Amino acid sequence: MFEVAEVGRSLSKSEYKTLEPQLHFQLLTLQQQLRNSDRSLIVIVAGVEGAGKGTVVDKLNSWFDSRDVRTHAFWDDTDEERERPHFWRYWRILPARGTVGIMFTSWYSKPILDKVFEKIDDSDFESELQRVAELERMLVADGTLIVKLWYHLSKQEQARRLEQDSPIAQFKQSPFVGQYARLYDQFTNVSERALRLTDSGIAPWHIIEATDNHYRNITTARILVTALQQRFPEPDSSPEIPTDGPVATATLSEDSRLTVLDTLDMDRSLSDADYDARLEAAQLRLHQLAWTMQHQKKNAVIVFEGWDAAGKGGAIRRLTAAIDARLYRVIPIAAPSDEELAHHYLWRFWRHVPRAGFLTIYDRSWYGRVLVERVENLAKRDQWTRAYQEINNFEENLVSHGTTVLKFWMHISKDEQKSRFREREGNPLKRHKITEEDWRNRDRWDDYKLAVNDMVAHTSTEVAPWLLVPGNDKKYARVTVIEKVCEQLEAKLQS
Amino acid sequence: MFEVAEVGRSLSKSEYKTLEPQLHFQLLTLQQQLRNSDRSLIVIVAGVEGAGKGTVVDKLNSWFDSRDVRTHAFWDDTDEERERPHFWRYWRILPARGTVGIMFTSWYSKPILDKVFEKIDDSDFESELQRVAELERMLVADGTLIVKLWYHLSKQEQARRLEQDSPIAQFKQSPFVGQYARLYDQFTNVSERALRLTDSGIAPWHIIEATDNHYRNITTARILVTALQQRFPEPDSSPEIPTDGPVATATLSEDSRLTVLDTLDMDRSLSDADYDARLEAAQLRLHQLAWTMQHQKKNAVIVFEGWDAAGKGGAIRRLTAAIDARLYRVIPIAAPSDEELAHHYLWRFWRHVPRAGFLTIYDRSWYGRVLVERVENLAKRDQWTRAYQEINNFEENLVSHGTTVLKFWMHISKDEQKSRFREREGNPLKRHKITEEDWRNRDRWDDYKLAVNDMVAHTSTEVAPWLLVPGNDKKYARVTVIEKVCEQLEAKLQS
Repeated sequence: MFEVAEVGRSLSKSEYKTLEPQLHFQLLTLQQQLRNSDRSLIVIVAGVEGAGKGTVVDKLNSWFDSRDVRTHAFWDDTDEERERPHFWRYWRILPARGTVGIMFTSWYSKPILDKVFEKIDDSDFESELQRVAELERMLVADGTLIVKLWYHLSKQEQARRLEQDSPIAQFKQSPFVGQYARLYDQFTNVSERALRLTDSGIAPWHIIEATDNHYRNITTARILVTALQQRFPEPDSSPEIPTDGPVATATLSEDSRLTVLDTLDMDRSLSDADYDARLEAAQLRLHQLAWTMQHQKKNAVIVFEGWDAAGKGGAIRRLTAAIDARLYRVIPIAAPSDEELAHHYLWRFWRHVPRAGFLTIYDRSWYGRVLVERVENLAKRDQWTRAYQEINNFEENLVSHGTTVLKFWMHISKDEQKSRFREREGNPLKRHKITEEDWRNRDRWDDYKLAVNDMVAHTSTEVAPWLLVPGNDKKYARVTVIEKVCEQLEAKLQS
Repeated sequence: MFEVAEVGRSLSKSEYKTLEPQLHFQLLTLQQQLRNSDRSLIVIVAGVEGAGKGTVVDKLNSWFDSRDVRTHAFWDDTDEERERPHFWRYWRILPARGTVGIMFTSWYSKPILDKVFEKIDDSDFESELQRVAELERMLVADGTLIVKLWYHLSKQEQARRLEQDSPIAQFKQSPFVGQYARLYDQFTNVSERALRLTDSGIAPWHIIEATDNHYRNITTARILVTALQQRFPEPDSSPEIPTDGPVATATLSEDSRLTVLDTLDMDRSLSDADYDARLEAAQLRLHQLAWTMQHQKKNAVIVFEGWDAAGKGGAIRRLTAAIDARLYRVIPIAAPSDEELAHHYLWRFWRHVPRAGFLTIYDRSWYGRVLVERVENLAKRDQWTRAYQEINNFEENLVSHGTTVLKFWMHISKDEQKSRFREREGNPLKRHKITEEDWRNRDRWDDYKLAVNDMVAHTSTEVAPWLLVPGNDKKYARVTVIEKVCEQLEAKLQS
């Protein structure tokens, strides 16, 4: 989830100086529309310590017309608050129709901190967040627009900031910063879970990389503009902009358009000799593991997604070559059958969930909903935005039953794809694998990149992580896949 | 909740013979529309043992064209099922678009039985039902229509049926019936909680009185017709029919139109001497209890609803006369202020939630949403149908904080109201209390009665029950209110 915010996005000072006034003006204009409507706006500002949440709140107050904006922070419970139900403190500050409420701390702060400091257990944590989700659902049904912003720093970056900050910056830090920094891993684990439980289509989370201040501020403004524009569309404009990651790429520099895929080291490769040795070792290991799974009645689901010609098929063949044919099934996902179309889109995947002791490999998967169906407009916006949570629920069902869930994204560069397409066209044995559609998909490379970034942001979870595999070198990719599968299965099996 | 299904509704055989063929035809016609649509229908048949669920399922199969109907029952988990995530068994049988799935046992059966037999604890029970709610939300978003039917019998009626049943009926009973009957109270408590947690606007529960077989079957058919008509409206018809209780009163006999209000004994009264003595005793008791609440830092919320001229004001004055003026506040709810209108409708009630040690009395309340706003079309159908769950969540917030929640419905007969109106008109001191609007409301008496019945069905919960007070005799009503308040407060206070 947070890996999408450790990509190294940045904006130059000059870009910032061009963009900020434009966005400021757009926000003021949109606020005017909000003011004349029966809707209200809640902005939730959350994230790791040191990410500059305070600066963001200052910015928001300077961008909006402050007459109709209130900023709220919740400190320790007051007497007044303690003597009433917990949610009373939020109800009393809900913004009126036409106005904006900025929540510097929010209904997320207490459950997350209570869990990090182990004041509450898993099930209390989960039911508190369910109550939060209910509250948000109720407010959205009533016309409130809720924009939830999560500011992320990598562990290294947070440590660097806390050391290097100027005396004046340190002065502004909360005295707990040091303590929170020591608990970085717990904090991000708990936060990831909180975000996952409350990341709904009607009130999605936006994860913002906060390392570069310019990028952080501009992205904040862009997300708000997009959210307000969707609610107050201008005639003749249909801003179809992704929910996360680089928003509205058009006018931005290369640096700010990076996605999580750009963090992969595409030069990874293996010599023939290394390949042979490591492939054999990994396949032997996997062969044994599959039988152990069978004996221990464990099962696994392995998902392959990736660019056309990224090597999914080759990787799957190397994988299955190592496993007794009775122990696995490969489910190729193409266009749905009539019967499948007649059901909920997850139905065709539920059908093939493996029994205890078996392994199901999906060659493409339910992620089609948020990839091809999104990019090609086969699913409506509300369908694919709510799909993230539906998918997370589905995978959590599997995982809580004890199923291992692995998801591989096979990544190649755009140039590498082109040369593979050309090679396929020239090879009579492979020509059937390449169609006009592949070339068309290629034209929408940047849209797919954003969709992949959003997918990782919303569905790469601790329990079912995405494994992004650099695939320009087929040998490296194939060996990596099998080794990763072995690693993950070993972790789940009793030795 | 279940008190609405212990009213004694029935239908004569001749009525049944007239109505059944009509409803049968309507269902077939509507099924045809379903078949040509991209929607599916799930009917969940649930309720207490002995209520005739099996007969209902047989009926459903005879009314619908059976080619597109499948009935499902889940027995003990099969091997196949046990080896996969719990929800797999439901996914595999979800009806395809255009078809009907009848669930004789459903995703509700296991959590309810597991809780009754104490195989799971409260928090497991709650999270399982949250998962059920998520599943239903997902299916409804995908176009599925879910109709949830709960068949209820009183404890006495269940016992009577199990004894008297003919040999052939006993033959059809499950061998667990006797066991379940002994656990009647646990079963209804747990079921009430399950229904409350999953009674959403998008998939509401319908509680059906199952004592009279004719009434049970016809009501089942009517609810299905109404639900399908709302989804497939005919041009020029807008069937605005309540979600619960007697459906479509027009063509039904008196007996079948009874509501929970008809169960009250309206002849209750007190002599002057009894009134004086009991009033004084109760007021003394309440005076002391209010101070004890203050010392023990407990609080309470008391809601008064009722017909115009039913005596709310008089009851409240007798109540507050007993309490030190520093310890309570009366909040009269009239038309909302501008500021209140600018917020979610629950906001104006959250504002006045009492601090520890205090008591808030609401003279009319949040129930306006499902009473006057519903009947007068001030709230849209989706607004008031989802309000039941929003209200239950609100009250659960209060109760889980330790607040005592009491809700009084002051009931008078229609004749009694008329004579009180006349009296007010003739009395210069009271004339201001009666307006044209009161007479207009009176014209919609039957609509209000159904709204009250639905309100009790959806919001009379174990934690915050409705107390229905027969109010034709003011003395009886006033004393009863104070005595009930004392009883409930005493139960919450340490002596």
